[in-house]
Formats: sequence, structure tokens, C-alpha cells
Amino acid sequence: MSTIEATPSTDRTRVRRVAQRGHYDGPTLHAILDAAFVCHVAFADGHGVHCIPTACWREGDHLYIHGANGSRMLRLAGSGAQVCVTVTHLDGLVLARSAFNHSMNYRSAVVYGVFEVVPDDQKARALDAFMEILAPGRSREARRGNAKELAATTVLRIPLDEAACKVRTGGPKDDDDDLDLPVWAGVLPMALLPLPPVVDAAPAGTPAYVREWQDSARVPVASAVINAPAD
Amino acid sequence: MSTIEATPSTDRTRVRRVAQRGHYDGPTLHAILDAAFVCHVAFADGHGVHCIPTACWREGDHLYIHGANGSRMLRLAGSGAQVCVTVTHLDGLVLARSAFNHSMNYRSAVVYGVFEVVPDDQKARALDAFMEILAPGRSREARRGNAKELAATTVLRIPLDEAACKVRTGGPKDDDDDLDLPVWAGVLPMALLPLPPVVDAAPAGTPAYVREWQDSARVPVASAVINAPAD
Repeated sequence: MSTIEATPSTDRTRVRRVAQRGHYDGPTLHAILDAAFVCHVAFADGHGVHCIPTACWREGDHLYIHGANGSRMLRLAGSGAQVCVTVTHLDGLVLARSAFNHSMNYRSAVVYGVFEVVPDDQKARALDAFMEILAPGRSREARRGNAKELAATTVLRIPLDEAACKVRTGGPKDDDDDLDLPVWAGVLPMALLPLPPVVDAAPAGTPAYVREWQDSARVPVASAVINAPAD
Repeated sequence: MSTIEATPSTDRTRVRRVAQRGHYDGPTLHAILDAAFVCHVAFADGHGVHCIPTACWREGDHLYIHGANGSRMLRLAGSGAQVCVTVTHLDGLVLARSAFNHSMNYRSAVVYGVFEVVPDDQKARALDAFMEILAPGRSREARRGNAKELAATTVLRIPLDEAACKVRTGGPKDDDDDLDLPVWAGVLPMALLPLPPVVDAAPAGTPAYVREWQDSARVPVASAVINAPAD
């Protein structure tokens, strides 16, 4: 547990299972949220409990979501219902010598609370901020939302004051008695990685954020070898 | 909507927003679940609604989860509470000419229902099946769970008979009036991809599933070029 306890743990947020994986500090929470494009929003209505994925972004001490006014999730979440919003990054499969000690490496953040509706006169600014996070500079390139489009869009935000993170990193933790077993042990890491852009139209050239996506796009190790110039 | 409606839509599962993205057929549902390592389980208790990530796997018409008996989520979910289990794959950022028409490509599956507890005498088989999905052959290599370990583990499964999928693919869908705007349009695709294995110990060589992970591991396009043999 970090010493910076920006979001003091509560009955809901205190990590009990493998408690040393719990983190309650702002920097850890912000890093996990900022690495996410999507969160899962859980809420309840007369039909039961729901868990809906949606795009998200952080600004300061709030996590934002948005969508069409007609969305059931946005209507419920925007009406003061208690929600739980979760972001999860899977970083790898951890293969231990014993089946029991297999695990996964991950970073997750769970935020409890109530969404507030971002007022009409602040929606455009909030949506511009989202665009700038996804693609710096693009909010000045794409046609901005007109009055009708903005009126059809709901933007919600939830404060980050009741939140907890859980993080596992590193290799397998085997029992001492198992360490000499003749079993492969290690981590199969993974990450959500960029693939080469698919261009629909580039009438004014390729923006920097698309070039950066292209430059960081991944190819299989095997293809990298196959496609290498012959020496 | 598919013509094969293996899981008839209900009040809870019918996709209302952009209804043509809704799918209710078994093959779509199975493909989305089978591509996932992790799901999010939403449930409610006296502290409110919760949304917890956990490993999952599918066998036949059930989705399985497991964990320590002491886990709050497993205790609640195993006690007959109504849950919603969601799997989401993010496939890309869709950059349209107008801010309003920006979107994401994704595949998501939402399963409603109640978990059942997998009986003690079936736990070992279920956990072996999970291991075989992650790493074919490994259930015969790793030390299997002993009686104490199995007794400490809860395995739950939920039937897939109330479920819905939502899928977006393809490029941006712009308004006709926007098509001539001088704005880059297209998709920035992404995927959860393997990275090179991290070996802790390989006393009996490298199993096939590790070699396959290595062979499909990704390197950045830039690195692929940098590391290519000089010609």
C-alpha cells in the first residue's frame, strides 16, 4: 500500500484478497485510468444489475464518460444512481509450477460513487479534451459538434474520491516444495498494442498522431524476420 | 441481428442503441467469450453495486470463473445473487471527419443470470479445462491442485441462456455533408497481443504453447526495421 493515500480506503474499496496488491494513491489510480480507452460501468435498475463497457477519459480528479441521451446506462448513471466503474489492464499469464499458484499480471482500478451530469455549457470543452487525449491536435481538425449534436449527447463525470487499485506484477510465486519440479515457469506477457492505421481518407496529409500510431504499431516477431531485407 | 437466435433477447439483453450492432447467436457469443482471458462481474450487496474483473473461460454453454473461497465476489456470486458478466474487446479508434461521428470498434458480450457452484468432485476437471485452454498440455505438466488447494478454491459457472453481444467493425460513418472536409479519417486499430515470454525456469525445455506465444509475439514496426539484417 502506498504511503500517499489520496483516496482513503473504505468498506467498499479496501482490498482484502492479497492485500499487498492494493493501492490507494492518486498516481497509481491516475496511471491506470489514463492507460484505458474503456471502462465498465455497473449499475442497478428494476431489471437487476448491469455491466456496460463504454469509452472513458480522466481529467483532474474525475473520470468522464459520454454517449447518446437515449442510452439506458447514461440515463440511469446520470440520475444519481450508485455506480461502480472499473478499468482493467491484463498484462500477462503467470505460469507457476503448481496449478494452484497460476495467476495473471494486471492493473485494475475500481471507482465507487455517483456520476454528475456535465452542464450543457461545459460539454463541448469536455469532449474536446477527450479528443485531445486520443489524438492531440485533432479537436482543431475534425468538425466540432454542432448545437444539435451536442444537445443529443450526455457527458457524465464521477469524482475519484472513493477508489482502489489492485496490481500484480512479476513472475510466479511457487511453494518452496515445488521449485525443483521439471515444469516450465514464467510469464506470457501481453498488451493492448497499436496495429497499422487503416486510412479512409487523408486529404490534408497524415497528422502526427496517426504517424505516431503507425510508428508504434506492432508486427509479429515472425513477420519481422520474414520481411527483413535479405542480407 | 443474426438469424440464429440461440439466446432470445429479453428486456435486459435487447440492444437498443444502434440496434443493428446487436447479436444474439451462439457462435458470435462463443467467439467473443473464447477470445477473453478476463471478464467483469457486476453484483450488488449491502454496500452497493460492484464491478470486479476476474479470469474466465467457456465450456459448452457456461462461462466459468474461480478464485479463493474467501473472495467477497465469489461468495456473493455463488450465493444465488443476480449478476451481469461482461467481456469486452477493444479493436480500434474510429476517427470520423466530425467529432460527433467518432466511435470505437469493439466486440462485447453481456451475460445475465445467476452463477451456480461447481460441485467439489468436478472442480479439478473444470480447472484442468481452464489450464488446457490457456496452455494446451500444461495440465499434465504443472503440479495439480492437492486436496487442500482444491478445497480452498471456489469454481462458479453461469449459463449462457440470457446474453447479448454488441459489435462494431469497419471505418467511420460520416454525414454526407462532411465527406469533403479536409480531415484525416480512418481507424487506429489495436489488439491485445502477445509479447515475448519471460522465462523463470525451463528445466525440461520449452513447451509448445510457450514457443507459439514467442512466435506470435509482437515487436514494434520500428524495431522490426531497426533489427533487420543490413542488406
